[in-house]
Amino acid sequence: MNTNELSDLVSEYDAIIAGTEIIDNSVFEKSKRLKFISRVGIGLDGIDLTSAKLKNIKISYTPDAPSLAVADLTIGLIISSLRSICFANNKLHLKKWDRVFGRRIENLTIGIIGCGRIGKHVLNYLQVFKPKKILVNDLYTDETLSKILNFEWVSKNEIYKHADVISLHLPLNNSTRNLIEINTLLNMKQDAVLINTSRGGIINEHDLFTALNSGHLSSAAIDVFETEPYFGELTQIDRCILTSHMGSMTEDCRTRMEIEATEEVIRFFSGKKLLNEVPDSEYLN
Amino acid sequence: MNTNELSDLVSEYDAIIAGTEIIDNSVFEKSKRLKFISRVGIGLDGIDLTSAKLKNIKISYTPDAPSLAVADLTIGLIISSLRSICFANNKLHLKKWDRVFGRRIENLTIGIIGCGRIGKHVLNYLQVFKPKKILVNDLYTDETLSKILNFEWVSKNEIYKHADVISLHLPLNNSTRNLIEINTLLNMKQDAVLINTSRGGIINEHDLFTALNSGHLSSAAIDVFETEPYFGELTQIDRCILTSHMGSMTEDCRTRMEIEATEEVIRFFSGKKLLNEVPDSEYLN
Repeated sequence: MNTNELSDLVSEYDAIIAGTEIIDNSVFEKSKRLKFISRVGIGLDGIDLTSAKLKNIKISYTPDAPSLAVADLTIGLIISSLRSICFANNKLHLKKWDRVFGRRIENLTIGIIGCGRIGKHVLNYLQVFKPKKILVNDLYTDETLSKILNFEWVSKNEIYKHADVISLHLPLNNSTRNLIEINTLLNMKQDAVLINTSRGGIINEHDLFTALNSGHLSSAAIDVFETEPYFGELTQIDRCILTSHMGSMTEDCRTRMEIEATEEVIRFFSGKKLLNEVPDSEYLN
Repeated sequence: MNTNELSDLVSEYDAIIAGTEIIDNSVFEKSKRLKFISRVGIGLDGIDLTSAKLKNIKISYTPDAPSLAVADLTIGLIISSLRSICFANNKLHLKKWDRVFGRRIENLTIGIIGCGRIGKHVLNYLQVFKPKKILVNDLYTDETLSKILNFEWVSKNEIYKHADVISLHLPLNNSTRNLIEINTLLNMKQDAVLINTSRGGIINEHDLFTALNSGHLSSAAIDVFETEPYFGELTQIDRCILTSHMGSMTEDCRTRMEIEATEEVIRFFSGKKLLNEVPDSEYLN
């Protein structure tokens, strides 16, 4: 649903349970009754938080519910990329038998950018595969965590330079938009694998196309796009695995997200304390 | 290389380092000098062991080297199947945005048939994903192992009936050939996922095609085939992931397999004790 369609609908309602729709000031202008947005999921990049605050519209989200499903897809994409599963599958369905050499996590350096709810689950899942080294970057470091999950806190540049697999687990905001552009990509190893299950817009899609098309990176796996549905130029690259924003799309996690978002609406109108109101820190990005 | 081509070559050599080629009595008849076969890999189904023994040709293999790579691919295929990674990737490369609901291992019963070198590694990797229940079948049970790896020893029939994901880790021999045929498949849950990274011939391929084509099973992922290269009817089924016998195909494992096979030849001609001579139990199958 685009903002026009949403604007037409929203004027009748006191609260909306929202997906990844763009909800900007044009929607708020038409929504005289709107008091509450309950966001199914974790990303807030589609909502104009400042305008909502000015109009005294409260916002909750479900930040925990999708984490395990996104981390699970991330591990699936890492192994699919390293073992060329989708590539070989496509070939064989076209009756071409092409045995491709792969790599195992045990022999590789894994870089994780963003160590929040999802990044931590990915780090936990990785343990059993015993990576040679795990490098992690986030705004804040925590030495206890790095000991438990066997990783080193490093700069983003060190990850770009040394990691064989780089996975992004960041929100989209002013400091992460276009974080990965052509120069960042070219700083990565020639045979690196880049995974993004977080948010579109963090990787510049045209730059990723240019890099892959020139033979740089061994592969990429992208679940999220700047504009969704995505039908752009990355669809031309065989060794770029593309999935359709399916990180949270497991039966259990979607159910939990939808129940949590609905319960939050009930809490709001019952005058109960909200459990997942968006924290002030999200308004600063 | 087929048996004719191999027969023409082999007469000149005292030993061969062999892949998955069929080596039967027709080859031995032409190989007056042959004293030793060093098999790169684990499966012995291609070698006529009895004829080799009658001709006093010794055989070694590399049973440990491929295990981790095969287990790693197995986990990749399980997650790819449960999360429809290849399916969504194909759609999106055709510019179709199709968000598919998936399932997580944590909510599922996983069935492992065959608990040898590879099955054990798969069971170890599965731990971090905390399956609801793990059911395992093998000829011999070991209560210590099932405690460490959190599983129950059960019959094959219980696995067919209750498991959401069934993964085969068996050798191909007289008791496993066509183990999975149409009746076994129909005993599995309607939405079960079937994985085979062990040997072709254990699943009857035509029966699997029939079952999938009728809508039975949610998906399958098959890395090994009765005749390879495989170009058969399973290539018509979108939700059957097909890879080209790539279980052992990681850089580290192939290197280890080839070094081990070569070292065994050197040991043989130096009169040293062989490290990986095929045990007598393999001759009984």
